[in-house]
Amino acid sequence: MSTFGRLLSSIKGPEDIKNMTFRQLDDLCAEIRRELIGTVSHNGGHLASNLGVVELSVALHKVFCSPHDQIVWDVGHQCYTHKLLTGRYQEFFSLRQENGLSGFCRPEESEHDSFVSGHSSTSISAAFGLAKAKELMGDDSYTIAVIGDGALTGGLAYEAINNAGRSKSKLIVILNDNKMSISRNVGSIARHLAGIRSKPAYFRLKSRVEKAILKLPKAGVKIENGIIKMKAGLKNVLYGNTIFENMGFAYVGPVDGHNLRVLCDVLESSKEIHRPVLLHVCTVKGKGYIFAEENPKAFHGTSGFNIGTGNTEHADYSFSKRFGTSLCTMARTDTRICAITAAMASGVGLNEFAHQYRNRFFDVGIAEQHAITFASGLAKNGLLPAFAVYSTFLQRGYDQIIHDAALQNLKIVLAIDRAGLVGEDGETHQGVFDASFLHTIPNITILAPSSYDELDSMLKDAFYHYKGVVALRYPRGEQGFIPQDYHSQKQSYTFYGDPDAPNLIVTFGRLFSEACLARDILNKNGKAVCILKLNVVKPMDPSVFDKVKNFSSVFFYEEGMQEGGIGQSFGFQLYQVGFKGKFSLHALPDQFIPQSTVASALTHFGLDAQAMAASVLQGEKTVE
Amino acid sequence: MSTFGRLLSSIKGPEDIKNMTFRQLDDLCAEIRRELIGTVSHNGGHLASNLGVVELSVALHKVFCSPHDQIVWDVGHQCYTHKLLTGRYQEFFSLRQENGLSGFCRPEESEHDSFVSGHSSTSISAAFGLAKAKELMGDDSYTIAVIGDGALTGGLAYEAINNAGRSKSKLIVILNDNKMSISRNVGSIARHLAGIRSKPAYFRLKSRVEKAILKLPKAGVKIENGIIKMKAGLKNVLYGNTIFENMGFAYVGPVDGHNLRVLCDVLESSKEIHRPVLLHVCTVKGKGYIFAEENPKAFHGTSGFNIGTGNTEHADYSFSKRFGTSLCTMARTDTRICAITAAMASGVGLNEFAHQYRNRFFDVGIAEQHAITFASGLAKNGLLPAFAVYSTFLQRGYDQIIHDAALQNLKIVLAIDRAGLVGEDGETHQGVFDASFLHTIPNITILAPSSYDELDSMLKDAFYHYKGVVALRYPRGEQGFIPQDYHSQKQSYTFYGDPDAPNLIVTFGRLFSEACLARDILNKNGKAVCILKLNVVKPMDPSVFDKVKNFSSVFFYEEGMQEGGIGQSFGFQLYQVGFKGKFSLHALPDQFIPQSTVASALTHFGLDAQAMAASVLQGEKTVE
Repeated sequence: MSTFGRLLSSIKGPEDIKNMTFRQLDDLCAEIRRELIGTVSHNGGHLASNLGVVELSVALHKVFCSPHDQIVWDVGHQCYTHKLLTGRYQEFFSLRQENGLSGFCRPEESEHDSFVSGHSSTSISAAFGLAKAKELMGDDSYTIAVIGDGALTGGLAYEAINNAGRSKSKLIVILNDNKMSISRNVGSIARHLAGIRSKPAYFRLKSRVEKAILKLPKAGVKIENGIIKMKAGLKNVLYGNTIFENMGFAYVGPVDGHNLRVLCDVLESSKEIHRPVLLHVCTVKGKGYIFAEENPKAFHGTSGFNIGTGNTEHADYSFSKRFGTSLCTMARTDTRICAITAAMASGVGLNEFAHQYRNRFFDVGIAEQHAITFASGLAKNGLLPAFAVYSTFLQRGYDQIIHDAALQNLKIVLAIDRAGLVGEDGETHQGVFDASFLHTIPNITILAPSSYDELDSMLKDAFYHYKGVVALRYPRGEQGFIPQDYHSQKQSYTFYGDPDAPNLIVTFGRLFSEACLARDILNKNGKAVCILKLNVVKPMDPSVFDKVKNFSSVFFYEEGMQEGGIGQSFGFQLYQVGFKGKFSLHALPDQFIPQSTVASALTHFGLDAQAMAASVLQGEKTVE
Repeated sequence: MSTFGRLLSSIKGPEDIKNMTFRQLDDLCAEIRRELIGTVSHNGGHLASNLGVVELSVALHKVFCSPHDQIVWDVGHQCYTHKLLTGRYQEFFSLRQENGLSGFCRPEESEHDSFVSGHSSTSISAAFGLAKAKELMGDDSYTIAVIGDGALTGGLAYEAINNAGRSKSKLIVILNDNKMSISRNVGSIARHLAGIRSKPAYFRLKSRVEKAILKLPKAGVKIENGIIKMKAGLKNVLYGNTIFENMGFAYVGPVDGHNLRVLCDVLESSKEIHRPVLLHVCTVKGKGYIFAEENPKAFHGTSGFNIGTGNTEHADYSFSKRFGTSLCTMARTDTRICAITAAMASGVGLNEFAHQYRNRFFDVGIAEQHAITFASGLAKNGLLPAFAVYSTFLQRGYDQIIHDAALQNLKIVLAIDRAGLVGEDGETHQGVFDASFLHTIPNITILAPSSYDELDSMLKDAFYHYKGVVALRYPRGEQGFIPQDYHSQKQSYTFYGDPDAPNLIVTFGRLFSEACLARDILNKNGKAVCILKLNVVKPMDPSVFDKVKNFSSVFFYEEGMQEGGIGQSFGFQLYQVGFKGKFSLHALPDQFIPQSTVASALTHFGLDAQAMAASVLQGEKTVE
């Protein structure tokens, strides 16, 4: 027991596991699991997916030579073992913390992170690009994409398979099949995989023959290829084709993803197939931690848990949950209301809806493009669909919002969760573009609730008051501070505070809470300030500008990109009506926003109450 | 001969063909082909795709009852026959003209256009949404998606198939397989289809048995399902599975898409399969017009042609061609340069590159998402990829630009063709969003050449001068007027004209030509004007504002959306440095832009030379 942890702490890089025995590697896997459980219980993060690929990660680094051979982890939420094996054990305590290790692959962090990850279904495209580049430059190393069965529902993965399948690239796609994306995987591809899994282990039958062949030098290659072809014919008759073979990949599998010896064996033989290979590996999400095995959903992404009891910490309430509750209430009386999720039912608060209104609930897979066009189809024939989606993933549906929804002026509700800063997930997940990319599109109304009550009333308005596409954007987590004397109203904007104050704070969404706190700070300093809260961010009610014109200083705070954002548009229009005062815009600069807590990021970018109060005081000084 | 055309002109709606004999329908098809060739030779448009689906369109309207049964045409560039059969024969002369019939499906035009079309691969998603809505409302009519084999390479189609395959919806997907998207179709799915086509006609074997069964009343259904299952098993052994069966669809085909009797037969029997059906129809692009059959690529989209000779009219030169030439020149000396297209090699000017640098040319299918992530992979390993794409289709890759390219600050060149107004293709194809959606993203440089020479030098700068993602955006068609005394320079902006004039016109890209013409008009009226041409649209060189500040009136013209666009950002920053003059922004209003010639649209939206001159004169009057 005293030596437990010794193997892991001795690993400086993947070369250190090359000479370990399988018995040592088994011990190493146990040490890795303990490290994963310990760190994630404390820092939060993805647990179940990481526990599922411990052996696979070890096998990959034993068989291949990273960084020369390049591994691309799809989504990257399963790359923790990879990080532990590639020289980042000492920093692993800082996982997902400000200035710490990313919870995803990040090339800036290590040469072993060959490509950025965070969003789903990108790995095969990226890996094929990496492989093609090496091919053209005469580099014969391997490129490996590791993709989950959930990510395989994303169209991008299919586009890549279609493009790569006909090549001769040294590309190995490892399908990590755990029957889950985040929730239980849905759709036809999942069923197809289930069909394959239920068949006799084709690989074992095949490998024995091929292994014998592979031992023959040189000439063996031709014979081997011949035998593969012959056996493929036989296999079709016995088992039918897999979709991967139809798409031009050599299919190998399914194999047990927790058997290190088999994994190493099959990875070695995959090297010998001189065209793209799809290796089907079956793993168990949460493997080795009983609570995660039994409830992988709860341990997909967690903000921390008690190791002994498996109790995950959860915020009591959130905008996501309120959205779900509110939608259920409305769906009770209006049977036209439907809910759509792209494999995130739990995250976006739709579990209850899924349970209560099974017929009207659609989990379409990790397929944001389809979600929007499908929603548009529902709307075209008279239903009222709401697509609940994280802001960062809505980026995938940009063209469909324009072309399929807005162009036809269809009523679909985009319930945009995690709008604004998202915290620990970092730069790949920040919801800081949606306001910018949506307000340029015609036939869209953008609503920004600051409180649960506003979310309720705005959701109602989204369905029954506004025409066309309605985007309802709300932040990750809980409602912030709302003053007791503030009552949400149905106007497109609300003034709150002293209307005769010289200074006006303008903002929307979560930052209204910060603005109210800033007002308290300023009041305590004897400074009067008024707040303008934008309820409808687009289209901007033109009547607002004549009212704002009378303030001598206007301070706009926006939890989104400054360039092309709402503040810029607001400021421009204010100037256009002849505003002669000082307009000061505080939004996110032209850079990607790194991981940290949301609070820390707000402080860093001058968007918390303290910073707001300080900028107003500072602004007063500079106005002559 | 004198009665030729009589059948077509007698059709007021699809009900009028229900009782026609097959012989009459054959005559009708001939009349339709003459009408298609005649109108497209004159108005331009899509010819080859429309000639390929004449029989299919007739069969669909004979067997199904539109608009109750809903037909969704993917892309919609093959819907002309559908238009002729659904009451639009009399207006067909106005195809693609201002206020005329759209070249795509447009629900505002007819209740028979059940969903908008224009972009690829949306039809299955839309049709599944339409079908689901009807299902929930107890409407048991059919929904049919007609999708080409090219469009099947788009990930959105796959996402929809994955989602729909497991349903029990009355959804019939017709795969219109002509072995082409716009050019010859590429990728694994195309190969798979070729494999299927080469097999004995499975349908004929099956249909005889099934037809007999179908004649049995009631009890027949169970027997029929049983037989289908049994035969499916047999078929797997003989033929292997198709990808569509693996994805949960009932596969029927391949059938001859020019045999009306077979088509009607198979459509009728497809109605009886109580789950989603994929009907594989083989057609010949350009069928019935020898020049189009022999060269379908030239007759995919054409701006008009001589019917007797088949000579298509082509502009002598274009930005697209210049881009291709320029890229070829650079690729000669730099072997890192690669070119990527999403099935548009000809349209974006890459034919020559494809020919000269086969290894470094990648047609990835209609897969803009993959194109960008793949390009990012190439770039990550040291190559210099340029992805040439129409502005409107780049919308599909929005998330990938952010997440895979810009976040890693990778050098990929986005060669954005058809940026700005596109003319006759209308609202689905306008390139009016790219500047807005790109300038909010960090690590991107946006360049806007106004002339061929500038395109050359900016393309060079894109590869060798700027870091990160570089978007080079240029308009459809030819270079406009460039004054002889104007010489393009390498600065991020250029002043041209009288620097002491009170009025300044600011613009970029194609509108620089209009601005120069406007300046001539103004000069003739004795008005001095200076022009500021923005070469680098993002990041905006901050030094420009102090220079612009000195003009008393600034007129900004932008061929893109006003809200969130470049002009708004420019104006805002100008005001922020203390500009006290008049700033007047002329850009596209918050609406979708309908079809017309580019020239007409520029006039309509106040962006041509006359309108510019008029607004400057008008502006002078209103300044006190």
